[in-house]
Amino acid sequence: MEMLKGQGGAALVSADVSPEIVALVSAEVARQLGATRAEIDRALAEVRERTVDDRAAIVVFSGDLDRVMAAFVIATGAAAAGLETSMFFTFWGLSVLKKKSAAGGRKGFKQRMFALMTPGSSDALGTSKLNFFGMGALMLRAMMKEQGIVSLEELMGLAGELGVKMTACTMSMDAMGIEKEELFDGLEYGGVAAFMGDAARARVSLFI
Amino acid sequence: MEMLKGQGGAALVSADVSPEIVALVSAEVARQLGATRAEIDRALAEVRERTVDDRAAIVVFSGDLDRVMAAFVIATGAAAAGLETSMFFTFWGLSVLKKKSAAGGRKGFKQRMFALMTPGSSDALGTSKLNFFGMGALMLRAMMKEQGIVSLEELMGLAGELGVKMTACTMSMDAMGIEKEELFDGLEYGGVAAFMGDAARARVSLFI
Amino acid sequence: MEMLKGQGGAALVSADVSPEIVALVSAEVARQLGATRAEIDRALAEVRERTVDDRAAIVVFSGDLDRVMAAFVIATGAAAAGLETSMFFTFWGLSVLKKKSAAGGRKGFKQRMFALMTPGSSDALGTSKLNFFGMGALMLRAMMKEQGIVSLEELMGLAGELGVKMTACTMSMDAMGIEKEELFDGLEYGGVAAFMGDAARARVSLFI
Repeated sequence: MEMLKGQGGAALVSADVSPEIVALVSAEVARQLGATRAEIDRALAEVRERTVDDRAAIVVFSGDLDRVMAAFVIATGAAAAGLETSMFFTFWGLSVLKKKSAAGGRKGFKQRMFALMTPGSSDALGTSKLNFFGMGALMLRAMMKEQGIVSLEELMGLAGELGVKMTACTMSMDAMGIEKEELFDGLEYGGVAAFMGDAARARVSLFI
Repeated sequence: MEMLKGQGGAALVSADVSPEIVALVSAEVARQLGATRAEIDRALAEVRERTVDDRAAIVVFSGDLDRVMAAFVIATGAAAAGLETSMFFTFWGLSVLKKKSAAGGRKGFKQRMFALMTPGSSDALGTSKLNFFGMGALMLRAMMKEQGIVSLEELMGLAGELGVKMTACTMSMDAMGIEKEELFDGLEYGGVAAFMGDAARARVSLFI
Repeated sequence: MEMLKGQGGAALVSADVSPEIVALVSAEVARQLGATRAEIDRALAEVRERTVDDRAAIVVFSGDLDRVMAAFVIATGAAAAGLETSMFFTFWGLSVLKKKSAAGGRKGFKQRMFALMTPGSSDALGTSKLNFFGMGALMLRAMMKEQGIVSLEELMGLAGELGVKMTACTMSMDAMGIEKEELFDGLEYGGVAAFMGDAARARVSLFI
């Protein structure tokens, strides 16, 4: 049993207090406290279950240059702010992850049509508005360059350096006939469950 | 008063310790502990107010087939992950909830124009890109079928089975002249306050 | 030292209990309790770090009338529900904040082209679909008026009255060559870090 001490640390035991009493006091305190502490720890654990991690989770659904830019600006901003950040690329957003020289796997007719109509890589992304056969995207790129704003490719590199996790949606890959070899290296692969696993614990979740 | 016991449960009361002392010790411990416990419970309640429920809340603003598909994939994924999931259909998203044979209520000229320009039911939704008079949507549907990916109608059925709550935005219904009879059965009806009630407690909130 | 009292407040000290014992009991209880309390307070503070504020944070990326309307409906709804609400206007969303008579600063050729192609103020916003040279937006406005639904300008005024914070994205302003004088008064100015600062503590974060 621990030595019984006063608040200042000085032993309180005096000639008038028997060792039995000292032992009794210490034990009774420990007993009552122990029961209460267990209840509080259960309550704390229950509240902790209802909290969030320092995370951000972003669905990149769009393949438009302006929206993809916004997604990477937000993702790098979140990572810079100390949030563990993950991006989930699905549907048109998969285009962002395509290598320039991607040869493409064996595709059916419909997948080949889709491949023709969707951008070959991030270089070829249009804007969500004012596309005018790519002019909107070219102008956005040129303006950003003039103003010293980083390009999409620089933002993607920065995101990688900041440890942003990038996951390619496997369901979309199947639907569009995209193979792993057509996409950048260093990606994660997963379905909606992978996204939900991150998003359910995240402070910020966005659909872009 | 409870029997005074040592940590091992053995009675500590010895011949040297008077019943008065035993009572005093037990009461003083309970008194100090009770006050502290009340403070901790208040602090716990205050922290609990700042936590979230295991919920997901999704605004379906878009009526595009691809975005609506994504909304249902995410909603069913969230429900499957154990989150209480609610979808709030507003603006173009209301089209998703329309019955095929909906006769339509009494509409003014502008509502009738809008009804002509918006899809009659989920069957008629276009994609957000590459629509080409419905070809994009048809191709997306055909590709999903070939790849064994569930259709929008199957996803909607699955969402219902998983207990996903679907709310039709009453303000949008008023603006577009849509009556309850034109929409599926089993829906909830509400405004932005209904969405906020769910979203403010949710782990994941998305605008699609 | 506090008077030693029983649970009912009556003094327990009897003739048989010496002042030394009373002091010892009180001090030992306080000592053990203090240590435990410190541990619990640390655990509470750690859990509190993982909670959220009563906040909502909305990125307004789109400049389409329908999406901007939805953003303001949700923002005013969130503020009315007691959430401290902030809107972050970026990319096309900046158009919403433009004064009607904005003269415009010195712009390069590309910025001038962009200014021609983007709406001059909230009056000129189109819808994300069915724009038909502005007809979709005009019809949406007319229908809302007929149905007694508040207009965008009314919603913006309401948002201001409800204390919704509106921040203009400085990076987008630089890219598009927009000066502060062209935007409404009473705005905040900031980058992605400003948005993240709000969003990371918010219950609801949306990208519109």
